[in-house]
Amino acid sequence: MDQVAKRVPIVYNNVMGYESTVTSPVNIAVVKYWGKRNSELILPTNSSLSCTLSQDHLNTKTSIRASPSYTSDRLWLNGFEEDLYASARLTNCIRELRRLRKEKENELSSSDLASPENLEAAEHHVPPLSEWCIHVASENNFPTAAGLASSASGYAALVQALSNLYDLSISLTQLSMIARLGSGSACRSVYGGFVEWQAGILPSGEDSYAVSVAPETHWPTLQALILVVSDKKKSTPSTSGMSTTVKTSELFPIRISEVVPKRIIQMKEAILQRDFTKFALLTMKESNQFHAVCLDTYPPIFYMNDISRAIIKLVDLFNSQVDEITKKPKGIRVAYTFDAGPNAVIYAEKDVIKEFIELVMYFFPRGTGQTSNSFFPDPFGLLKSSCSGNGNPSTTPAEAHSHPKFENYTPIMTRYEPGSIRRIIHTTIGDGPRVLDHSQALFNEAGMPKRVKD
Amino acid sequence: MDQVAKRVPIVYNNVMGYESTVTSPVNIAVVKYWGKRNSELILPTNSSLSCTLSQDHLNTKTSIRASPSYTSDRLWLNGFEEDLYASARLTNCIRELRRLRKEKENELSSSDLASPENLEAAEHHVPPLSEWCIHVASENNFPTAAGLASSASGYAALVQALSNLYDLSISLTQLSMIARLGSGSACRSVYGGFVEWQAGILPSGEDSYAVSVAPETHWPTLQALILVVSDKKKSTPSTSGMSTTVKTSELFPIRISEVVPKRIIQMKEAILQRDFTKFALLTMKESNQFHAVCLDTYPPIFYMNDISRAIIKLVDLFNSQVDEITKKPKGIRVAYTFDAGPNAVIYAEKDVIKEFIELVMYFFPRGTGQTSNSFFPDPFGLLKSSCSGNGNPSTTPAEAHSHPKFENYTPIMTRYEPGSIRRIIHTTIGDGPRVLDHSQALFNEAGMPKRVKD
Repeated sequence: MDQVAKRVPIVYNNVMGYESTVTSPVNIAVVKYWGKRNSELILPTNSSLSCTLSQDHLNTKTSIRASPSYTSDRLWLNGFEEDLYASARLTNCIRELRRLRKEKENELSSSDLASPENLEAAEHHVPPLSEWCIHVASENNFPTAAGLASSASGYAALVQALSNLYDLSISLTQLSMIARLGSGSACRSVYGGFVEWQAGILPSGEDSYAVSVAPETHWPTLQALILVVSDKKKSTPSTSGMSTTVKTSELFPIRISEVVPKRIIQMKEAILQRDFTKFALLTMKESNQFHAVCLDTYPPIFYMNDISRAIIKLVDLFNSQVDEITKKPKGIRVAYTFDAGPNAVIYAEKDVIKEFIELVMYFFPRGTGQTSNSFFPDPFGLLKSSCSGNGNPSTTPAEAHSHPKFENYTPIMTRYEPGSIRRIIHTTIGDGPRVLDHSQALFNEAGMPKRVKD
Repeated sequence: MDQVAKRVPIVYNNVMGYESTVTSPVNIAVVKYWGKRNSELILPTNSSLSCTLSQDHLNTKTSIRASPSYTSDRLWLNGFEEDLYASARLTNCIRELRRLRKEKENELSSSDLASPENLEAAEHHVPPLSEWCIHVASENNFPTAAGLASSASGYAALVQALSNLYDLSISLTQLSMIARLGSGSACRSVYGGFVEWQAGILPSGEDSYAVSVAPETHWPTLQALILVVSDKKKSTPSTSGMSTTVKTSELFPIRISEVVPKRIIQMKEAILQRDFTKFALLTMKESNQFHAVCLDTYPPIFYMNDISRAIIKLVDLFNSQVDEITKKPKGIRVAYTFDAGPNAVIYAEKDVIKEFIELVMYFFPRGTGQTSNSFFPDPFGLLKSSCSGNGNPSTTPAEAHSHPKFENYTPIMTRYEPGSIRRIIHTTIGDGPRVLDHSQALFNEAGMPKRVKD
């Protein structure tokens, strides 16, 4: 495969600009980030650890173009134009990358700098990009309504695209620190696989960045499901939520000083040993403790609702099943984790996923009127083979299954109202940000978003 | 008022027996009991503190009769006969009181002991009650379906009635320790008002008993509401729940060693100063922390559901209201606390209760088909006066109120499905166990329950 250029020159109206397009992944923490020791620099109270999910299913795509013909910095998010400077965090990220670009330009003599009027020479010179305005367009390939936090993939894509556009030779460590200024958890989305955000101890934040624990290839059988849960109420924003927790929770200090440091070590061991049982137990306990300190906050913060609780119960039941022949426990085969909202993220080994999905589809049937494909797109064709010969295209195999399959669960679990889970997203552990070809950019030739909404 | 005899002699079929009837109150902890250091002796990991609620509205009534003609110990709970010896805890309480009675009898010469055949002499002698079998009948005046724990009032009534029947001269301290053997929180129901269960440190449990912090007359304006919440799922029993918490929660140790000891001191100060704000804040934080350590348990324990959370939100909103004229915050006027179930107990000063009840009735309307009297019996006639002239007897004033009254809440709160709260019980802080007259006993003359169910 040819290497895709990190940025490309674009000539429009006889003026040469530059453009870069990347996608960046979502990451889901298994040791949670909750609490800042410095709000401006976004320095956390504790280290955290996450799995990067595959961009094939969930990503933010960001195109940035710089041109001497632009008169202002502009931003389009999912097709809607927004005020780029309304967000101090966004401004901080862009300012820092521009500063690095400026430094690079300053290191060169003025004669090396290209003039926009001299197109022939431009490609062999260093264009003064730090002086030019930029257009930024960013889109998530997952609906905002899915309730998934897009700030991690969003800021990771922004800093990666701008760093590429500016042709900066900075390390992923540096990139991670700049992404951190946008959104704490974004610093972990600059790597694929298993990633630790080291909290650091310096007031400057110079030692607070992400490091790779293991690449995505390390544990290829680990997969993830996102169970998108309906919720009428707006959740507490995580920024204000974590600040209230730090101020008011009396259990929080012990979590930070004792529990998390131990868990970070144990979680890295579990990942390096590909020990699913250990990984799963730590993941679930950690999710529970994060929500426990939210509840110990005053006023208390709730992110999980009755459906989230029912998913936990289903996982607990699944993990306590006994093999019918050997009579031995099947063991911990599935782990849940919940972030600052009611959605569950499930981690499981590949060979267990199908059984668990069928269980979820039985107890949380799709909404009336919803197509089975929009409920569970089944990107890996897990349920398709058993579908052959089924004349009713709207009935998925799990729904058609007879009751006995679930009889170990039905004494305790009841089936929930259709639509209680709105969507099941199946994905894998994936790689870090990807550079895309100009043909996949979000801009048209004029440097305006291809898709604009009002 | 005449002093009611603690026990009465009953002659039936020419045999003299003795009978005692008491009622005992429910108590609701504001510093929670959760965790045992010794399961058999029911010794807690931490001191706890509760308010005793009025027996006028919530009580357990227990009658015990001893007769030389009985051939076995028998027990009726709410009219259903149960195996008295199926419960080790019940057995422990009865065994201990019988032992004390036996000691008392042993202190007297045999000539002082009455013979059942010698009725004339019996009243002037000490009958050998420890040798006789007993009939126990116990009834709650609140429906079991109300989801209120009846073990505290139940065991307090049992030990009080049996101690009276046996004519024991034991202190409330001793009585409290015996009630503790039945159910930990029962030890607090032997006093009215504000009660601390001192955890103690001795392995024998001799220093683990309840003491009065202040009598019910100390803070006569403090009132309570119980909001009975519908819940389909069975909650985790508190005995197994607290044992799992002690074993698995990593936040629990700091709660026990640092948070609770401090809170006990602060809570006593708040009560002695009748400082509602301080009392309310501590009560709410303490409830939150109890549920936080339940959530930090593995597998996690949930007692609150979406309706419980909505009640917390309503309380938070109520406590953040601003006076329309002075523009000053009205302050913390209501406190919530939740035990091992979804029901809320609300504490508030008398002059605030009506406003809060109306709010609850608006956002959690009674179920369709439910009468307003069964939803909110209104024992203090709070809503009755404003009802005059209202031609529709099934419409309570709160329900008839127009929307504007709740407009500070409606941007944030939505009205919940009718019947989400099943019942509102309004009560006050009340006294300790009461001795009742024979006419109010649960037995007929033959010593069988007046009301029996199969």
